[in-house]
Amino acid sequence: MTGKLKIFTGNANVPLAKEICRHAGVRLGKCRIVKFSNENIKVTIDESVRGKDVFVIQPSCSPVNEHLVELLILIDAIKHASAQRITAVTPYFPYVRSDKKDEPRISITARLVADLLQTAGAARVMTMNLHSPQIQGFFRVQVDHLLAGKLLCEHFKKEGTDNCVVVAPDSGSAKHAKYYAAVLGLPMAIMDKRRTDDSENPTVHSVIGNVQGKRAIIFDDEVASAGSLCEVTRALHNLGVREVQACCVHGVLSGSAIERIKNINLSRLVVTDTVYIPDHKKIPRLHIISVAELLAKAIIYTNQGKSISGLYDRY
Amino acid sequence: MTGKLKIFTGNANVPLAKEICRHAGVRLGKCRIVKFSNENIKVTIDESVRGKDVFVIQPSCSPVNEHLVELLILIDAIKHASAQRITAVTPYFPYVRSDKKDEPRISITARLVADLLQTAGAARVMTMNLHSPQIQGFFRVQVDHLLAGKLLCEHFKKEGTDNCVVVAPDSGSAKHAKYYAAVLGLPMAIMDKRRTDDSENPTVHSVIGNVQGKRAIIFDDEVASAGSLCEVTRALHNLGVREVQACCVHGVLSGSAIERIKNINLSRLVVTDTVYIPDHKKIPRLHIISVAELLAKAIIYTNQGKSISGLYDRY
Amino acid sequence: MTGKLKIFTGNANVPLAKEICRHAGVRLGKCRIVKFSNENIKVTIDESVRGKDVFVIQPSCSPVNEHLVELLILIDAIKHASAQRITAVTPYFPYVRSDKKDEPRISITARLVADLLQTAGAARVMTMNLHSPQIQGFFRVQVDHLLAGKLLCEHFKKEGTDNCVVVAPDSGSAKHAKYYAAVLGLPMAIMDKRRTDDSENPTVHSVIGNVQGKRAIIFDDEVASAGSLCEVTRALHNLGVREVQACCVHGVLSGSAIERIKNINLSRLVVTDTVYIPDHKKIPRLHIISVAELLAKAIIYTNQGKSISGLYDRY
Amino acid sequence: MTGKLKIFTGNANVPLAKEICRHAGVRLGKCRIVKFSNENIKVTIDESVRGKDVFVIQPSCSPVNEHLVELLILIDAIKHASAQRITAVTPYFPYVRSDKKDEPRISITARLVADLLQTAGAARVMTMNLHSPQIQGFFRVQVDHLLAGKLLCEHFKKEGTDNCVVVAPDSGSAKHAKYYAAVLGLPMAIMDKRRTDDSENPTVHSVIGNVQGKRAIIFDDEVASAGSLCEVTRALHNLGVREVQACCVHGVLSGSAIERIKNINLSRLVVTDTVYIPDHKKIPRLHIISVAELLAKAIIYTNQGKSISGLYDRY
Amino acid sequence: MTGKLKIFTGNANVPLAKEICRHAGVRLGKCRIVKFSNENIKVTIDESVRGKDVFVIQPSCSPVNEHLVELLILIDAIKHASAQRITAVTPYFPYVRSDKKDEPRISITARLVADLLQTAGAARVMTMNLHSPQIQGFFRVQVDHLLAGKLLCEHFKKEGTDNCVVVAPDSGSAKHAKYYAAVLGLPMAIMDKRRTDDSENPTVHSVIGNVQGKRAIIFDDEVASAGSLCEVTRALHNLGVREVQACCVHGVLSGSAIERIKNINLSRLVVTDTVYIPDHKKIPRLHIISVAELLAKAIIYTNQGKSISGLYDRY
Amino acid sequence: MTGKLKIFTGNANVPLAKEICRHAGVRLGKCRIVKFSNENIKVTIDESVRGKDVFVIQPSCSPVNEHLVELLILIDAIKHASAQRITAVTPYFPYVRSDKKDEPRISITARLVADLLQTAGAARVMTMNLHSPQIQGFFRVQVDHLLAGKLLCEHFKKEGTDNCVVVAPDSGSAKHAKYYAAVLGLPMAIMDKRRTDDSENPTVHSVIGNVQGKRAIIFDDEVASAGSLCEVTRALHNLGVREVQACCVHGVLSGSAIERIKNINLSRLVVTDTVYIPDHKKIPRLHIISVAELLAKAIIYTNQGKSISGLYDRY
Repeated sequence: MTGKLKIFTGNANVPLAKEICRHAGVRLGKCRIVKFSNENIKVTIDESVRGKDVFVIQPSCSPVNEHLVELLILIDAIKHASAQRITAVTPYFPYVRSDKKDEPRISITARLVADLLQTAGAARVMTMNLHSPQIQGFFRVQVDHLLAGKLLCEHFKKEGTDNCVVVAPDSGSAKHAKYYAAVLGLPMAIMDKRRTDDSENPTVHSVIGNVQGKRAIIFDDEVASAGSLCEVTRALHNLGVREVQACCVHGVLSGSAIERIKNINLSRLVVTDTVYIPDHKKIPRLHIISVAELLAKAIIYTNQGKSISGLYDRY
Repeated sequence: MTGKLKIFTGNANVPLAKEICRHAGVRLGKCRIVKFSNENIKVTIDESVRGKDVFVIQPSCSPVNEHLVELLILIDAIKHASAQRITAVTPYFPYVRSDKKDEPRISITARLVADLLQTAGAARVMTMNLHSPQIQGFFRVQVDHLLAGKLLCEHFKKEGTDNCVVVAPDSGSAKHAKYYAAVLGLPMAIMDKRRTDDSENPTVHSVIGNVQGKRAIIFDDEVASAGSLCEVTRALHNLGVREVQACCVHGVLSGSAIERIKNINLSRLVVTDTVYIPDHKKIPRLHIISVAELLAKAIIYTNQGKSISGLYDRY
Repeated sequence: MTGKLKIFTGNANVPLAKEICRHAGVRLGKCRIVKFSNENIKVTIDESVRGKDVFVIQPSCSPVNEHLVELLILIDAIKHASAQRITAVTPYFPYVRSDKKDEPRISITARLVADLLQTAGAARVMTMNLHSPQIQGFFRVQVDHLLAGKLLCEHFKKEGTDNCVVVAPDSGSAKHAKYYAAVLGLPMAIMDKRRTDDSENPTVHSVIGNVQGKRAIIFDDEVASAGSLCEVTRALHNLGVREVQACCVHGVLSGSAIERIKNINLSRLVVTDTVYIPDHKKIPRLHIISVAELLAKAIIYTNQGKSISGLYDRY
Repeated sequence: MTGKLKIFTGNANVPLAKEICRHAGVRLGKCRIVKFSNENIKVTIDESVRGKDVFVIQPSCSPVNEHLVELLILIDAIKHASAQRITAVTPYFPYVRSDKKDEPRISITARLVADLLQTAGAARVMTMNLHSPQIQGFFRVQVDHLLAGKLLCEHFKKEGTDNCVVVAPDSGSAKHAKYYAAVLGLPMAIMDKRRTDDSENPTVHSVIGNVQGKRAIIFDDEVASAGSLCEVTRALHNLGVREVQACCVHGVLSGSAIERIKNINLSRLVVTDTVYIPDHKKIPRLHIISVAELLAKAIIYTNQGKSISGLYDRY
Repeated sequence: MTGKLKIFTGNANVPLAKEICRHAGVRLGKCRIVKFSNENIKVTIDESVRGKDVFVIQPSCSPVNEHLVELLILIDAIKHASAQRITAVTPYFPYVRSDKKDEPRISITARLVADLLQTAGAARVMTMNLHSPQIQGFFRVQVDHLLAGKLLCEHFKKEGTDNCVVVAPDSGSAKHAKYYAAVLGLPMAIMDKRRTDDSENPTVHSVIGNVQGKRAIIFDDEVASAGSLCEVTRALHNLGVREVQACCVHGVLSGSAIERIKNINLSRLVVTDTVYIPDHKKIPRLHIISVAELLAKAIIYTNQGKSISGLYDRY
Repeated sequence: MTGKLKIFTGNANVPLAKEICRHAGVRLGKCRIVKFSNENIKVTIDESVRGKDVFVIQPSCSPVNEHLVELLILIDAIKHASAQRITAVTPYFPYVRSDKKDEPRISITARLVADLLQTAGAARVMTMNLHSPQIQGFFRVQVDHLLAGKLLCEHFKKEGTDNCVVVAPDSGSAKHAKYYAAVLGLPMAIMDKRRTDDSENPTVHSVIGNVQGKRAIIFDDEVASAGSLCEVTRALHNLGVREVQACCVHGVLSGSAIERIKNINLSRLVVTDTVYIPDHKKIPRLHIISVAELLAKAIIYTNQGKSISGLYDRY
């Protein structure tokens, strides 16, 4: 019923795309992406996609806006080459944190990106760990929202979680952290950051819940500049924890994130490979868990019209 | 630039609509809504709305689905009567809790309702305290998301908050509760409910944070059957609090909610009038704060093309 | 080419759905429809529909608006579960009599419902005996408009039509009645109801055509409250007919219809099972003809891409 | 609120457009419509329409398809010249009789035309006496459906209706004729045409109702080839009427209609000027009633945002 | 994956459609196209197209607007008969020269036609030698833009091109002519037409490039009234060429084109059969090259989901 | 009728935006555009735009894709802040050269950008000198296509054009160059570049038309890397011209364009300021003509609903 499976990738995370193809047993589709001196991107699809069921892999990786435009052009080129169906596979969704209007006159850019993908020609979207699960409602087209929780819990179960406490870095992450606490059978605490009038120390970090003498594991959906992660780590040490680990699905690690992490007392940072991590960022205490096999299965099942709900945990 | 202001209402919350009109200094628009013996609703707009800027007030109140269909027909009738612009004013948004896909093969019904309103002809939506702020991204049309927080905080400031603690009834409400804790300058605690293997007491309620000897105020966006509110209230008393109050923006109070509340040790329940509360539910310990003036101002400002962002706090 | 056939039903007319499945040799799809205490409907599809060709059976039955919303949510849930194609099967179409704007500032609600179904995700609609055939033009999507006329004529041919006259209850039904007169080879008469100035008898019923001494069969597309049917029956007896029967495709029988029918001299009322008729309404003189086999064939042919135009008569 | 009123016309019925402009006190907009040797139509709007409220008058007149394409191009040119709002004024709507699917695999072309007008850029449609009132439901945009009944009844009231009977030429026109019978206080009859097996006289015309010795007035929405009108006229004379008149809103008078009418015993044919009638068709027994003033008022009221529902009778 | 292939044709170019079917080995689909006395076109599709992959052949031929409306109705009828996919095959695209806004307040009618086709239900468009290749960007749906260049060059290569020069009849055709010059390995010249103030000879034709003593072949995308072709031919003779031939893809030959051509010194005019050429226009010096085989292959490949890019040259 | 004029700008060409505001007598709208460490752009509009008529200035300037995404977010933020109408002012349109599909399986990216702008919320587009005028047909929304030709011709008239010849750098630019030749009353020549089999000199540049001993002015719509401009300049000198000037509307000047220009014998390069030119690129022989006043007038006229067609020449 659905056409033959084809997988293409943009330049955002080629190693991930190759891993997905390896797990799926599918050759990566041939295309050329050229950037001219005037910075215009030209995409040429180098094999027929007529009537094919095409998946385009392009998570949001640096340079973010460049890769977003590249993705839109890729989809447009494939659409006009008469593909049967195009699925945008964006394991880390562009502008995923811009999901609400918490100030006047700003853009809910994640919604805008959803609309742009559909305008370009995406008939489906496959993504992972959206900052809030409500983002699924931003799409008119079908969206598969995979979750890495099961994979990450397997890691921590293997490593052992004696005397551990799950820490949500802020009240907005409480629900996310709750899942890990429940699956790992651990207690939970939530960081509470408040502005004070004291101009020297503008914010005070306290904790809701009991962390003293415990091994804290901070759970969050992403780590970008690591600024907030470092603040929380420091605060936890001040509150008497014995050790701090962190686990963030999307390892954005932008700016001087790696430098910051090197300079704090964080014993381990676990991330997935949804975002491309160049070799120079792969410091020893960074542990990367691949989602390639999960994505490969989800792609194959979708192509074959099989249910994917058994592949991952929901929360 | 915009047409003359007209306000219509369906049958969902006529007292609120009348209060809004009183504050806005506008006469309620004339229309007849008849339900035939075959249960079909017929709406007749009894005054010209050509070129007018029409606001239709219809929060989600019992009977919920009946009122939803009534709203869609109202909007359709006004659209085909050549209104310039129609704003659906749904202070309590229909199916607002159905905002994510946390199980396979379910509907994100809040998104569906957003689409249905737009299909019927709504060019704008004005609503209050969505269960999650991301729901704003469900709309292609402009949406004004007002928040009752400022009004509710004023109430508690007046009443006094000595020795109080803000309680989030679960991890998903932590962010909502955080706003009140910050504005009222109070500490915060979060209830943690877990499934056990013990079939007698399938769930255990513990608390993250310190509540003992304090006066707890539970903050949530809505109270429906009050089942969860009663569980939390009981658990808080077991945890040694001195008093429990609750404050929920939308007083849905469905089923035997009022009976449940009468039977627990809850000293006060504060709600707004976004949802219609019939007289027999107005028990002494229920305190109702009206949002009519806020909505009236937002409607007038919108009609006049003035910014409404100063009318309320965001979080 | 089209996916495997799946049939689901809402709560509107479960016996009809079961009969259709029996004729089609297909198991009814598994889904749960729960109504919470806050009256929100939750639909969970309990089997994979990825790539399937799904038919959702839900005629407009009491409670009408409840079932309409249920249908929209069902379709939305199935769409986002990645069905290949969804056909809304609404043998009695919601708000089918609201098909024109014969007063200022009213809604053509049948058109609105058509739009809502499409917004929810219906790619096709299958329906029966629309109040006016023009309603087919309300749909952007494909619509199969089946007609029960052939089935109903077979019944009357078997029963015998000696000395019968076909009666249209008003001028708007003349075209509908004409079909039966032509197929059954019977003469025809049309009731003419006029307002007078006489406040005692505000309307006078006369007949255009010859009915005296004949056996009248009133043909109409639906019987709702039966008020008009009773008036016409009485008027026909006053005009000297020997016997009155009636045949209405959709047996809505709302309000006190059954009581009214019991109290008049109507020897038989023939309807189909497009609308659910609870047992307490099944009085002896009510004769129900099933359309389940016709619908089952139409569904199977549609799934197999075969023409359905031979299954029924058009007029 | 709405822009300044501008009226343009295509070539379909220039005299009507001029009369409308005279009544509206508005100068006809300047535009050139050229047809090249390759039959391509080129429209040039010769005055600024930026921000104007533009009405384009183009009923369906011979050559019908040529004028339809011309109308679409006119609207497109005006849209891209940045008009604020465009209303297509099609007093006789193109393909109005193609309003249902009474055979398999045909087009509901009136619906298609509605869609084409909207695609070209019409934001509103103003039309008169649609073949069936349900056609209003074909439009997503607002449609004003004016009716000529009041004007036509005024004519017959003035002429006198002693001993008259209103005749519907077939069962499908019964509802239309009913309006005139009610307003003029006349009895009504309906022609009943049936196919027989007799190949000499394939159809038999009988009448439902009493016409003998009376003066018949046939009412219909349009007269095209006049074939059916002539058959009915002859049949009525055979049935013993004293005189036959006819009144049809839209005087299409296509093919050899005028010749046919000259050759039958029809004392008068009343039509409106919605369709252009060239001088050579203006035979003495043809009486033309202008709808220009009604349309002019409707246009002005629409531009001024005033209700138009008082301008005409609905049925 | 795609349905069974079906080919239908309107009345525009039946011989071409038959040739395409012959090459494709497919029987022409059965349909009836009737034009009533009121000039309304009625299309009846006389075989089932449910789930089929339908191609509708209708280039823009005289009467142009009639055939355009016919095409739209054909597509609409096939769409509502539940075809899987409809491709409008318009080898000569309607209004193809109306592709830009070179005056204020005109319509880009080629874009309008693209939109109308999509509104009617075309899911794909197959066309040939658009006046400008940018027109492909007018379509939201997929478009296959075939080019006849390869076929035409084969003809000239066979005929021999000694001492020939390719002539572009104006600067706008320079790019088109360039392709032929390059493929045939010939020099090129461009006609330069300017307005003067001399009212006797308002325009002066000069040439850019060297033509004297050469055999000129004028290349253009279409020949309509042949007015410009004749002017250029005359000018070339004045400039000393030895012989003039012309090659235009689309042989529109409207108005008195054939008469004009007979009266000038043009040794040969080569066209394709995209436009229907009646026998009386087939003068000896007109040479017609059929594109039927190319179109047949493109249709078959499209149905089978195979790439068509190898079938023709791009430029 | 239209709201109060507001002008905003992104970061692409702030000096142009400021000049436009100066000419328009309007203060530049306040907004903040922040780029976070994760490269996500955040736009905050810092003044109310409710009901305003907003123009957003953002031509395609380096970094091109960054600025395109910024523009889309700007428009989205302004739309959801309830602006009445948003016009995207992109004097140099993004991806304007990607306007056709001259290879299989590529994107017509200019069309994609048009769609993206509309999806984001642009109701109008104002642009200048599109690479081909057909691009106007890519927009469903209204587009104002201004041309700089008049301004550029004024410059050359002032400078004097004795013994000059207009040169089109290739056959695709012939039509563009023709305009300048006509307005300046100059002869014209066209460069003809062909591939040879000679691997040393793969292409040969010849000229169609007479240039020897003349002063050549090359006209083109844009100069990007200047590679082709340099080749043509060199070829013209080889062909014996006395002097070469160039005039390109859009001075993209990407990569090492300025270096290339410094190294060839080009006496002057005239461009406009549609593209931002940093100071280090402003070499003496570069002459910049501002289009700010033209754009300012077009913006003001559009806001006031006045015709803009008199502001510039079309060709």
